[in-house]
Amino acid sequence: MEMDTIAAISTPMGEGAIAIIRVSGEDAIQIGDNIYKGKKKLTEVESHTINYGHIIDPMSGDIIEEVMVSVLLAPRTFTKENMIEINCHGGLVSVNKILQLVLGQGARLAEPGEFTKRAFLNGRIDLSQAEGVMDLIRAKTDKAMNVAMSQIEGKLSIRIQKLRQELLETVAHVEVNIDYPEYDAEEMTLGILKEKAEIVNKGIDKLLATAQQGKILREGLSTVIIGRPNVGKSSLLNSLVHDNKAIVTDIPGTTRDVIEEYVNVRGVPLRLLDTAGIRETEDIVEKLGVERSRKVVLDSELVLLVLNNNEELTSADEELFQISDGRDRIIIINKTDLPQKINLNLVKELAIDQPIVTTSLLKDEGVDELEEAIKQLFFGGGLESEDLTYVSNSRHISLLNQAKTAVNDALGAIEVGMPVDVIQIDITKAWELLGEVIGDSVHESLIDQLFSQFCLGK
Amino acid sequence: MEMDTIAAISTPMGEGAIAIIRVSGEDAIQIGDNIYKGKKKLTEVESHTINYGHIIDPMSGDIIEEVMVSVLLAPRTFTKENMIEINCHGGLVSVNKILQLVLGQGARLAEPGEFTKRAFLNGRIDLSQAEGVMDLIRAKTDKAMNVAMSQIEGKLSIRIQKLRQELLETVAHVEVNIDYPEYDAEEMTLGILKEKAEIVNKGIDKLLATAQQGKILREGLSTVIIGRPNVGKSSLLNSLVHDNKAIVTDIPGTTRDVIEEYVNVRGVPLRLLDTAGIRETEDIVEKLGVERSRKVVLDSELVLLVLNNNEELTSADEELFQISDGRDRIIIINKTDLPQKINLNLVKELAIDQPIVTTSLLKDEGVDELEEAIKQLFFGGGLESEDLTYVSNSRHISLLNQAKTAVNDALGAIEVGMPVDVIQIDITKAWELLGEVIGDSVHESLIDQLFSQFCLGK
Repeated sequence: MEMDTIAAISTPMGEGAIAIIRVSGEDAIQIGDNIYKGKKKLTEVESHTINYGHIIDPMSGDIIEEVMVSVLLAPRTFTKENMIEINCHGGLVSVNKILQLVLGQGARLAEPGEFTKRAFLNGRIDLSQAEGVMDLIRAKTDKAMNVAMSQIEGKLSIRIQKLRQELLETVAHVEVNIDYPEYDAEEMTLGILKEKAEIVNKGIDKLLATAQQGKILREGLSTVIIGRPNVGKSSLLNSLVHDNKAIVTDIPGTTRDVIEEYVNVRGVPLRLLDTAGIRETEDIVEKLGVERSRKVVLDSELVLLVLNNNEELTSADEELFQISDGRDRIIIINKTDLPQKINLNLVKELAIDQPIVTTSLLKDEGVDELEEAIKQLFFGGGLESEDLTYVSNSRHISLLNQAKTAVNDALGAIEVGMPVDVIQIDITKAWELLGEVIGDSVHESLIDQLFSQFCLGK
Repeated sequence: MEMDTIAAISTPMGEGAIAIIRVSGEDAIQIGDNIYKGKKKLTEVESHTINYGHIIDPMSGDIIEEVMVSVLLAPRTFTKENMIEINCHGGLVSVNKILQLVLGQGARLAEPGEFTKRAFLNGRIDLSQAEGVMDLIRAKTDKAMNVAMSQIEGKLSIRIQKLRQELLETVAHVEVNIDYPEYDAEEMTLGILKEKAEIVNKGIDKLLATAQQGKILREGLSTVIIGRPNVGKSSLLNSLVHDNKAIVTDIPGTTRDVIEEYVNVRGVPLRLLDTAGIRETEDIVEKLGVERSRKVVLDSELVLLVLNNNEELTSADEELFQISDGRDRIIIINKTDLPQKINLNLVKELAIDQPIVTTSLLKDEGVDELEEAIKQLFFGGGLESEDLTYVSNSRHISLLNQAKTAVNDALGAIEVGMPVDVIQIDITKAWELLGEVIGDSVHESLIDQLFSQFCLGK
């Protein structure tokens, strides 16, 4: 495939120690030479070498920057094309100037994700691997990072390919029987079809079993803390944030704002909703408390309902129970440092089978138990995937569900003894749907749309 | 000099396409090998090569990231030490995780600027070159970038060294005469001393002549727009920002906030003060207008005073003239699309010799003339340095001024026929002060303080 040469700044914008301009395409090395002066020409150095020199403005002759240029020759590169990476001192003006010079030599500004898109179009990685790259960049926890890395490594792809292989063999088998009806193997064919379809069905189920956790690992579990005023919502928030934010923020320079309300509780990434609301309103009278809670509960997947150990249950408490019914929920009875006035039996009745944790956030007691309860709720089922092959992406989950439906349709057709060529339609459909996960038989517009969500320079 | 191995993330924090962990020191390559798995060991590859592989957590065996590791062997590196640069997909979690692994293998988290500090301590660059690196990163305009690059290239250092050489030869000459008084060359010595001191004096003057412009290029010219309500301050601000912000912001992804009020007017970087004040108050009655202006004018180097062509001068206008007297100032008579009611002669009288520009910001007329006036004010004197050797750093300017004083003291002493060993003290002092510019004879605490202003990973 002949493609033009693209370029972009691949490091985040901002003052930094290093900035990189990435160039990929047939002319990448030549374009580099047009604006670079070093000991050797870039077209004369070996692949995978780092070359010290200067970027020169070809119009003015001015020295623009002191750089290290990495030369990477096709096909052993990220895009499978010729690439250079110009590694310069990280100033905004100079990095932009170098990009302008590169563009002036005939490169085109890359679209977001276009380097990875080329890696896909040139066959170095499949679509689910490319999606893994984006997930890795966006990962909020170690575990999410591991899942994404496993996807980049192609572990999901291999599973999908195995299932497709089963289906392909089935189709081939059926076609033999259609083409050579004299063998009259109709009976046997139906039996094999059923067997194969059931194997695939099981395989899809096994993948889908990881989907709930996978999705949570990837996107975070939207969590809301509700409770009457002064039961300790704000303390709970602070406690969760304080205990669990370390892995992302203990490196100086990390912008706290960006990841502010993302906490990692024993591997479960919680995306805390309406924390501003909690911080604003905890210390003032909350007239609209229940109404506000009703709204945020609608967007949540996990509810942390906080009660006051030192007070009788109120009608507001019961209302909060009611509006959060049906959600995953943990009941927190706080202020155990004060005398118990709450009716525990009533709480248990309202909670039904959901976990109840007692805490004294003031004395920092019970937080461990709460965190363990959160972990149990999501990893307790023993569903944790051993080899980190999780289906985590909504697109994949949807395709797997559709493929499962097609396989089930096939099984139904077999059951009622439909002609094999009818059954074959469903099997082929399942094969195609699984193919979409890894980027076979995918519409170009979908590919464009997927890669456009990547960041610039990737 | 034996130094430990340091590591830091060298790309700006944030989601990006590439993140780099930089490691420098004796053990850099070995530390890399402890957490890296590729085709070859890093200790076995050649210098200046790029090596594809994976980062493995040595405890868990988990694959953490897909990486390209640059191996750079001493002394041909940024720090003159062994270095590796781990180039990975730019996720916050994974880049932090890799840094943690590197630190776990015995590297120490680098302090801000510590890589550049090592380049200095190991003798690869001098102090003014190191300062140029920081200036380059912070440069707001092309010209500031060029000045910084020239400093990195050592052009300022060479000038300084030449001057020091003159002084050193003088001192040597004097010492010969002191040590061998039998030659009785006292008379001649004074003559030569005077000649040399004058050469150095001139050289320093030539450098200092670039200082005003250099400082503006480096730091920007703090500029304030003042004027009564509704004369067009906000339009002027928008017009300047709109016309001139392109070079820094036309690349997608640039954070506007950071550079919001920095505009580059024909090579003159204006740092616009109190723009929030202008935006907030332009459309409402400004009760505290003059008071507020008085304050911001105090911090400014350039005042843009806007008047209304369609109104008589008011006492408020005259007050604004008064509070900005003595500053560099451009008078803008706006609203030339409306009939002239302003008394031009009176304006000219108040402006004395300062430039007056007439504009109709509504019709986008006169802005070119204004920009030219700004340029003329700062580059009109013909002082523009040809080879881009500007003294731009306050520290350098102060040292040059002190050195000049010492040289002048020496000249005074020569004039009154003081003994040569007394004169020698001043000459030596000038030599030392010039040395501080390039980092000779500088206190360690000053070095620490200078490099601490660098960014992390540099």
